[in-house]
Amino acid sequence: MPAWEAYLNAHRARFLGETEAFLRIPSVSSLPGHSTDMDRAAQWVARRLEDAGLEKVRFLPVAHGGPPVVYGEWLHAPGRPTILVYGHYDVQPPGDLAHWSHAPFEPVAVAGRLYARGASDDKGNMLLPIFAVEAWLKGDGALPLNVKFLLEGQEEIGSPGLPAFIREHRALLSCDWVVSADGGQLSEEQPAICLGARGLCGLQVDVAGPCADLHSGTFGGAVQNPIHALSTMLASLHRASGRVAVPGFYAKVRAPSHRDRALLRGVPFSEAAFMALAGVGQLAGETGYTVLERVWLRPTVEVNAIWSGSGPNGDQTVLPASAHARLTCRLVPDQIPEEASAAVEAHLRRQAPQGVTVSVHHLPGGAFPYRIPEEHPGNRAAAAVLADVYGRPPCHALMGSSVPVCALFRGILGVNTVTFAFGLDDENIHGPDEFFRLSSWTKGQRAYALLYEHSNLPRSGKGEAQSV
Amino acid sequence: MPAWEAYLNAHRARFLGETEAFLRIPSVSSLPGHSTDMDRAAQWVARRLEDAGLEKVRFLPVAHGGPPVVYGEWLHAPGRPTILVYGHYDVQPPGDLAHWSHAPFEPVAVAGRLYARGASDDKGNMLLPIFAVEAWLKGDGALPLNVKFLLEGQEEIGSPGLPAFIREHRALLSCDWVVSADGGQLSEEQPAICLGARGLCGLQVDVAGPCADLHSGTFGGAVQNPIHALSTMLASLHRASGRVAVPGFYAKVRAPSHRDRALLRGVPFSEAAFMALAGVGQLAGETGYTVLERVWLRPTVEVNAIWSGSGPNGDQTVLPASAHARLTCRLVPDQIPEEASAAVEAHLRRQAPQGVTVSVHHLPGGAFPYRIPEEHPGNRAAAAVLADVYGRPPCHALMGSSVPVCALFRGILGVNTVTFAFGLDDENIHGPDEFFRLSSWTKGQRAYALLYEHSNLPRSGKGEAQSV
Repeated sequence: MPAWEAYLNAHRARFLGETEAFLRIPSVSSLPGHSTDMDRAAQWVARRLEDAGLEKVRFLPVAHGGPPVVYGEWLHAPGRPTILVYGHYDVQPPGDLAHWSHAPFEPVAVAGRLYARGASDDKGNMLLPIFAVEAWLKGDGALPLNVKFLLEGQEEIGSPGLPAFIREHRALLSCDWVVSADGGQLSEEQPAICLGARGLCGLQVDVAGPCADLHSGTFGGAVQNPIHALSTMLASLHRASGRVAVPGFYAKVRAPSHRDRALLRGVPFSEAAFMALAGVGQLAGETGYTVLERVWLRPTVEVNAIWSGSGPNGDQTVLPASAHARLTCRLVPDQIPEEASAAVEAHLRRQAPQGVTVSVHHLPGGAFPYRIPEEHPGNRAAAAVLADVYGRPPCHALMGSSVPVCALFRGILGVNTVTFAFGLDDENIHGPDEFFRLSSWTKGQRAYALLYEHSNLPRSGKGEAQSV
Repeated sequence: MPAWEAYLNAHRARFLGETEAFLRIPSVSSLPGHSTDMDRAAQWVARRLEDAGLEKVRFLPVAHGGPPVVYGEWLHAPGRPTILVYGHYDVQPPGDLAHWSHAPFEPVAVAGRLYARGASDDKGNMLLPIFAVEAWLKGDGALPLNVKFLLEGQEEIGSPGLPAFIREHRALLSCDWVVSADGGQLSEEQPAICLGARGLCGLQVDVAGPCADLHSGTFGGAVQNPIHALSTMLASLHRASGRVAVPGFYAKVRAPSHRDRALLRGVPFSEAAFMALAGVGQLAGETGYTVLERVWLRPTVEVNAIWSGSGPNGDQTVLPASAHARLTCRLVPDQIPEEASAAVEAHLRRQAPQGVTVSVHHLPGGAFPYRIPEEHPGNRAAAAVLADVYGRPPCHALMGSSVPVCALFRGILGVNTVTFAFGLDDENIHGPDEFFRLSSWTKGQRAYALLYEHSNLPRSGKGEAQSV
């Protein structure tokens, strides 16, 4: 047994206690009133990096303020690759406490599951590469490669300052590739190499009609109703086939390659399990594509929210002054967020009936679609480790959701991002009763320790550049 | 000058003070926490009826509780008609106080306008027939006809108990016709006889999709989005021509008669003024009909509210679990509320795409469309009075809004309702800065006193029955 592995085994109880201590800090970045908690979480993380043996640990402020990035490094493996480990210490708000079986910030381990907000996303995952660093440094005296850590506190609010931050710290963050500890696996048995994520752009549409809510009896029938107008506009976004009806939306979309389709066919995927997870009796979407192709390889336009009039508790029979919707598109290569947004805006404006005024506000937080080459050296290392740890080779998967940082790291640092994390789809991230499997927590520490070893291929000049 | 007229002139200042005192009571029936105010308002009204000389004044409880009906009568004109005066002492909630120029329950008279919640709807109007009764009884010693008053406190919540109440008190409320002090005139210069009101029915549509809000990245593209489904369903309610696309919706709709169309052509109506009031630069609606025909003679389906997702302040990129809308239809003869609701429900269900579950809840508070014959004796009396008071003959108008009590009085008591009130469309009823013109308030007292005189035609058996 390698020294690092003996160290992980010997310190398991302490590591679990530390994980629970970290989960007790309600580091909710999106709600006011948690700035002290964010400070406590950042300080906890910094101390934890130092305790693991990382060096030059510090807080790096982010443009426009807010929780800082916690940085640490260990760069004593000359001639070996440098990886930049990414994770985040902020969490989603707990939402309605009545829906939680346990208090969200009082972690409880029940039947192999550690329940708490952030257990899976991302505190539980984020600690795994830190424990693995400590095991190598304390067990073996050195790491087999160079590591840097970039742990941010604003992921759950869309990392608004991160682009400027990465540009500003381009030299400090230089690396051969990024390893993201934010993500997951396909199932407890089946590991996966994540080859990419969909991009994102968002719009708010405001349809204005009369100067104020009108009496629907006095004016109804002669004044355009903004809800009718908005419904017509939104209904026009999709064809009955499920295809997006926005002209130009698919202009730059790469047709799924034979290789992509073949890879997806290799993913053990159960429609029944997917439907059970969604809680629907029937699936929908674009004809001509499998379910996995729809969520991984095809772009979407989804309306996320709509509102007008007095809402669920009112009973006013008004012809409302305005109606509003928020939409997001999930994008695939080679769509460009601004172009997709503009196409949707133009379509909505064309579909607006007379008698209303349409304004469109493009939402911040866009993301380019991201793909990492299948044969990237980081992927090869991850694949070898996952095959060892899970006892079966990983399949190749994609994410339907968006990971803006991946495109940022490539755009600014010129490096790809290998996703290496252990969350599973049923772990209620962003919902009540979030949990992380203790089996994943254990497996992930060993996997990270092995990843450091397998990533230890000699550098051949600009290792990354040749693999893009 | 008749004695009643001298009395009105002599007591004008006191009547104004009383109107202001009544407006100071925040008798908001739809908000909790106002039950004491509702009691105070009911007691104020009862005392005011007694002070006017009305007899047998009492509170009559309404089924299911809530503010009572205040009743009073004066029945000492044998052989003369009996009219039942209808009004309501409850008011709409003030809404956002920031939008008011004056405190809503501190009446202020500025430039000929009395500002307060309820000034026009309906406290200011409701007092006019009471002042006129007092003027006759105190000035002349007797009224020229028999009167009963039914003043309710639940109009603004849809008069839920009134049908049962009228049935229960059928004998007490028997009359030749009803005079409603809830309504208005066309303008300061142009009086109108109101020949009817549109009916009403309402539905709430709930579209359920996944078991919870889903991550739009993980599931978007493969799970039906309830907002998309609802938008498609709502967009299908109207054709581009503005015509309602619901099969069967027009089945019982009477085509506008030549007489109706001729009457409407006689209404001095300014599209520019209507547009200014609505705050729109362009009108909309069903092709082939004038604006007045659209709002008075044609039925509508209007969506009054829609909601799904986290609303204006959220930013969750969810595929929401459900989406909701509230709709109302304005109905014209001979549509039946339940049938119109059922037709809309059936249409919405047919239009629902696969992958969602639709439930429909029919809202209480429906109303039959109402028409009173042009030559009804109450209309003839009202027409004579209005011609006198305004110095020009009234035109014949309709209301686009709904007055459920009219159809109730006809259905249960077998009598028609003459609308005789003095509000104007720009007086912000239900909105901030509601006001009532002091000129209308003065004119209305004299008009009611004259109406009592002109309605004083000898009874010929069942006066009403022959005129229906």
